[in-house]
Amino acid sequence: MSIKELCALAKEASYKLSTLSTQQKNAALAAIGAQIKLDKDVIMQANAKDLALAKKSGKPQAFLDRLALTQLRIQGILEGLEAVAALADPVGEIAEQYTVASGLNIKKVRSPLGVIGIIYEARPNVTIDAIALTLKSGNAVVLRGSRDAANSNYALVQAAKKGLKSAEINENAVVFLASPAREDTKVMLEQAGSIDVVIPRGGEELKNFVLKHANMPVIASAGGNCHLFVEASADLEKAIPVIVNAKVQRPSVCNALETLLVEQSIADSFLPKAAQALCKEKVILKGNAQVAAILSDIEPADDAEYYKEYNDLILKIKIVKDTTSAIAHINKYGTGHSEAILTQDSTKAEQFTSAVDSAAVFVNASTRFTDGFEFGLGAEMGISTQKLHVRGPIGLKELTSLKYVVTGDWTARS
Amino acid sequence: MSIKELCALAKEASYKLSTLSTQQKNAALAAIGAQIKLDKDVIMQANAKDLALAKKSGKPQAFLDRLALTQLRIQGILEGLEAVAALADPVGEIAEQYTVASGLNIKKVRSPLGVIGIIYEARPNVTIDAIALTLKSGNAVVLRGSRDAANSNYALVQAAKKGLKSAEINENAVVFLASPAREDTKVMLEQAGSIDVVIPRGGEELKNFVLKHANMPVIASAGGNCHLFVEASADLEKAIPVIVNAKVQRPSVCNALETLLVEQSIADSFLPKAAQALCKEKVILKGNAQVAAILSDIEPADDAEYYKEYNDLILKIKIVKDTTSAIAHINKYGTGHSEAILTQDSTKAEQFTSAVDSAAVFVNASTRFTDGFEFGLGAEMGISTQKLHVRGPIGLKELTSLKYVVTGDWTARS
Repeated sequence: MSIKELCALAKEASYKLSTLSTQQKNAALAAIGAQIKLDKDVIMQANAKDLALAKKSGKPQAFLDRLALTQLRIQGILEGLEAVAALADPVGEIAEQYTVASGLNIKKVRSPLGVIGIIYEARPNVTIDAIALTLKSGNAVVLRGSRDAANSNYALVQAAKKGLKSAEINENAVVFLASPAREDTKVMLEQAGSIDVVIPRGGEELKNFVLKHANMPVIASAGGNCHLFVEASADLEKAIPVIVNAKVQRPSVCNALETLLVEQSIADSFLPKAAQALCKEKVILKGNAQVAAILSDIEPADDAEYYKEYNDLILKIKIVKDTTSAIAHINKYGTGHSEAILTQDSTKAEQFTSAVDSAAVFVNASTRFTDGFEFGLGAEMGISTQKLHVRGPIGLKELTSLKYVVTGDWTARS
Repeated sequence: MSIKELCALAKEASYKLSTLSTQQKNAALAAIGAQIKLDKDVIMQANAKDLALAKKSGKPQAFLDRLALTQLRIQGILEGLEAVAALADPVGEIAEQYTVASGLNIKKVRSPLGVIGIIYEARPNVTIDAIALTLKSGNAVVLRGSRDAANSNYALVQAAKKGLKSAEINENAVVFLASPAREDTKVMLEQAGSIDVVIPRGGEELKNFVLKHANMPVIASAGGNCHLFVEASADLEKAIPVIVNAKVQRPSVCNALETLLVEQSIADSFLPKAAQALCKEKVILKGNAQVAAILSDIEPADDAEYYKEYNDLILKIKIVKDTTSAIAHINKYGTGHSEAILTQDSTKAEQFTSAVDSAAVFVNASTRFTDGFEFGLGAEMGISTQKLHVRGPIGLKELTSLKYVVTGDWTARS
């Protein structure tokens, strides 16, 4: 069947999905879990094939580690399905209700988006995460995984389809596009009539490819060039563990700290202490001449350096005149992901949170908290740094939107 | 200055705009109105130039009528500015607030989108509408109007910029791209770093061009192939005026009725009465063989006919087996704009509103009500038929989104 026909099948299936009860959706999630348990050997054999191919093509060990479906990871997938079943169903929620002068009763009702396309790289556990979140939010899904995980993804999708079938749900609620070729992905991205929204999950190159070719709306995430600003009134003792946490707790992820901004008036006293704590954690510090005048041992940083995102134990430092300068730096160099201010001055905190243009702005907390679980959403399908529809974690609610349901009394417009 | 540089200026201006108070924004709207009054002669002279050029190039009278800025239309523009000033400011609203286990206080705060690009056709009054709505919602705007209104738009924008200046607001809050050439529009659509969201306001061709070339999110509207379904339990007397209203009150607009669906069991008795009322209003009826068996005088309609949107006094009729068939027809042939059911059976109404996949679904009311004013939004920047971010009228609130503002107590992630 052609990609176009497959996407149209997902569309067809989506209409029924949007009307399923919470119980029906939870039963389907349980059925998928049960099927994965039954098919565990088949799934692990398929994964072994992917691992052998990846090894043969010389992929590094870290890549193989991410690709591997261990017993523990399959257990994680099953727990993920249970966790999504336990989440509140967003569909049908009445977000607003009011009556207007013409007598019409107007409700804004939370409804599924329809068909969500997901294009993702490497890790096969994303396959079941994506199926669980889209199903629970009443959507159909069109999946396009990576070439490296093709066998694993296929086996997982087959189990999910069998699970759907046993729960008496149209198995086209999950459509898997087997070919990872760019040309085929382009065809997928042209199916605006069938796919309502597409979400790329991967690096910058994938995101740009999707933004360039999709003729339907996209939910995308830029990287996370995250900042933390130490304002003059901050409690400098308490500041240091927050900075260290933001930088070193998990440096490889997008909400880790990349640039530390320090207000000029406290730079002399604060920077040496901060540097000492960071160096203890093996963080490499970089800074311009102004910073080097205080911290002699750091690596030099030119202007271009402040745009960079390392996702590693590297921290850029900059001294700024005041809160206004810190905001200007962040809005210029940042990616709109997560930024923090450490301060005891509520006026400065208010100025910062109002003017910083990012998905999440923190006062006296680590940037590492930008996460669906930490924000109480229960699960997430990535982070959005665009401003349309959703900023920050993409949870179940963000996989829906509001439809107007309007009731009259045989009302005509005058 | 290049298009890229102009868009960057709007971005620069947007940061300050997002922090303006409601009073400052309302003062700016008043200053723009005062300046338009002062510059009325210049604006009307510019419009006269556009009208002369359009006449010379042989544009039809209806086109010239839409292009003309009469005294009355300028009055309308001024009243529009006052109306927007009177609307509630969405910026700063706390949509949700809660505390999570880690102790963090999480707020979702309504914030401007940043820079909104608007690409629109013909009517110059859209220029000031767009400026008013984006300004009141704390956004900067990049405007690209049509070639035919180039002089009028330029004069209106100059007045707006003078107004902004006198209200001490950066005049780059409004950027006008003078060239309507497709190549230049493409460059505009590649400025994702500066323009956060783009809204095309015009026909299908413009919309598709924007969706194809934009590398930032788009809010778009398909046309309105709107349906009304007369369910078997409907009060047939009361049904007729609602149908006539949906079809004839303003047939040229996107929320006007295009297809009437009638349940099989009442077709014989109902269709002749409905046809009589519609023919009185000079509506041309079309239908397939099943309809022609009841209404002998209608024009034939094949399957392709039901996809068409006429925006004229033409109505397609189809007989459907039941509510389920009506829903299936609408989801297949519709554009996701506005659909209605006429019924006295609340179970059928519930089935219809839950399963019909459109921005607005009506029970016992005319489709003509899908409109920012009728829905109580006070004003609108068009209608969205996509599902991401907003379905239906785009009001002030829909020109904002929610940012996370998170407050801790020197909190690190464990």
